[in-house]
Amino acid sequence: MNIEMIRAAAQRLEGKVRRTPLLNSSFVDEIAGRRVWIKAEALQHTGSFKFRGGWSAVSALSPDVRSAGVIAFSSGNHAQGVALAARLHEIPAVIVMPKDAPQLKIENTRALGAEVVLYDRDREDREAIGAALAEARGLSLIKPYDAPEVIAGQGTCGLEIVEQAAAAGIGEADVLVCCGGGGLTSGIALALEQEAPNMRVRPVEPVDFDDVTRSLQTGHRQSNDRSGGSICDAIVTRSPGEMTFPLMRDLCGPGLVVPEEDCLRAISVAFTRLKVVLEPGGAIALAAALYHGDQLQGEDVICIASGGNIDTQMFMRALETYPCP
Amino acid sequence: MNIEMIRAAAQRLEGKVRRTPLLNSSFVDEIAGRRVWIKAEALQHTGSFKFRGGWSAVSALSPDVRSAGVIAFSSGNHAQGVALAARLHEIPAVIVMPKDAPQLKIENTRALGAEVVLYDRDREDREAIGAALAEARGLSLIKPYDAPEVIAGQGTCGLEIVEQAAAAGIGEADVLVCCGGGGLTSGIALALEQEAPNMRVRPVEPVDFDDVTRSLQTGHRQSNDRSGGSICDAIVTRSPGEMTFPLMRDLCGPGLVVPEEDCLRAISVAFTRLKVVLEPGGAIALAAALYHGDQLQGEDVICIASGGNIDTQMFMRALETYPCP
Repeated sequence: MNIEMIRAAAQRLEGKVRRTPLLNSSFVDEIAGRRVWIKAEALQHTGSFKFRGGWSAVSALSPDVRSAGVIAFSSGNHAQGVALAARLHEIPAVIVMPKDAPQLKIENTRALGAEVVLYDRDREDREAIGAALAEARGLSLIKPYDAPEVIAGQGTCGLEIVEQAAAAGIGEADVLVCCGGGGLTSGIALALEQEAPNMRVRPVEPVDFDDVTRSLQTGHRQSNDRSGGSICDAIVTRSPGEMTFPLMRDLCGPGLVVPEEDCLRAISVAFTRLKVVLEPGGAIALAAALYHGDQLQGEDVICIASGGNIDTQMFMRALETYPCP
Repeated sequence: MNIEMIRAAAQRLEGKVRRTPLLNSSFVDEIAGRRVWIKAEALQHTGSFKFRGGWSAVSALSPDVRSAGVIAFSSGNHAQGVALAARLHEIPAVIVMPKDAPQLKIENTRALGAEVVLYDRDREDREAIGAALAEARGLSLIKPYDAPEVIAGQGTCGLEIVEQAAAAGIGEADVLVCCGGGGLTSGIALALEQEAPNMRVRPVEPVDFDDVTRSLQTGHRQSNDRSGGSICDAIVTRSPGEMTFPLMRDLCGPGLVVPEEDCLRAISVAFTRLKVVLEPGGAIALAAALYHGDQLQGEDVICIASGGNIDTQMFMRALETYPCP
């Protein structure tokens, strides 16, 4: 993995990916006690950054391999990203999703033309299911994070941050990334290493699902006890990726671990002050900036708001429980 | 008024105004039966396009006049736009607001450093109040729409649309604009007249507040019977402006008149499919595209989503009453 792969992915994504805005608000700054910049990837096609990696990976396949179709396993956002990338390439897509994924994500994936195969998160191994289906039908497996072209695609978000931060006059900054398997985190870290070495990427995870933070602390890949049951479903993985972990270990600062409820508070702030809809996992970096600023350094912090695919009930719970001051 | 004033305003706004994204979604296209493009001005500073006109007008004042401060009367969005423009220029701002404006808008205006003066929408004349205060304190009145520099500022939104539409491959299109006094509508129409003559601007208004649509039909300025009581508070005015009406008459296509409830349905669609928070008045152009497409022509329609300053209760009412399919 290197930045040239990210630059190549950026070329393939040109005109396909949406350049998401870097938002800010004096009201948000006041809560956080520093300048907060929000990279609004919830506004990306399919409502999350995952379309970047999906398009990058699908477009990197050779045409004859690609035409047989692709398969992905995902709690939902990767599913939609790959499904849309496949549809725009006019190839079949099979998506393996957990039965307890938000209904909206399952429906959207189907509506994007993909065939959805549901599995039990506690009893079945999604990777085994994906591999078997891939072999049976000749499909190319698009992994959610542990694949070079996926990491490269997510890294294009980092290239945009470099340009937008320069335009906004941001020098040094912690860059907080909502972190599951580490594809987005490691991709952005690779992009910034070269282009903005005075920025430090830091993964943010929910309490009880802090595998990456503990892995960075110990220098070895750690696992979570649970594989599901978090409202931050989009960023819950058992452990960091084999490919993403070494990148994060070499390039990232310490992780931050945030209570789930803070994500709901951040959702309410984003609603009132930024007019952007976030899901819990996509709001956790903003939550860290707003409510755990004692763990940050410097005048500026950049938060990736990685996704907005939230069920209505959860969103209303956030607004009702934590009205924005 | 001419396009050179808009270009000059765009230069003054460079680096100050946010270039808002032009969003789309295949799910939205499916509801509308054509390609729908949403210019997300709810993501502008202060949550509406009004910061454009506010900054344009404040920055156009001579420094010695400007230093005495500015005054504005507004149901809320213009208030916030002028308040922020004044604060960034480090000058005082007095904002005259109706007592029944959404509490959030009143609080935000105060939090942006402005002095807020409340008045009774049914019994008092806001223009008279504004004029008296302006004279007493030497403040420059920043009108909400009937002023060249305000229209020029709103017109910068049109210049962005020209560039973004070209990049998206949009040729002919109706451009639907949420319309109150007509500042945004006439500004965009002026920008497009020169730069994109195959686009046609059309104002969109709520039922019972269709003064602009009737004025365009009759060729003379018409008034509404009521001056308030609409959930589309941001775009309710008694009649089109003296300055904006001739521009709209010369440049715009027929108006569209949309039931208020359709705005709530559009808010729910924007939440689910675009991840953008809209207020009822800011959603009315999208509502016209979604539910009144029989009045449109062509494959593409561009909708200005002009603002997102909505109270939590109203937003939850939209999501609960009209869950997005």
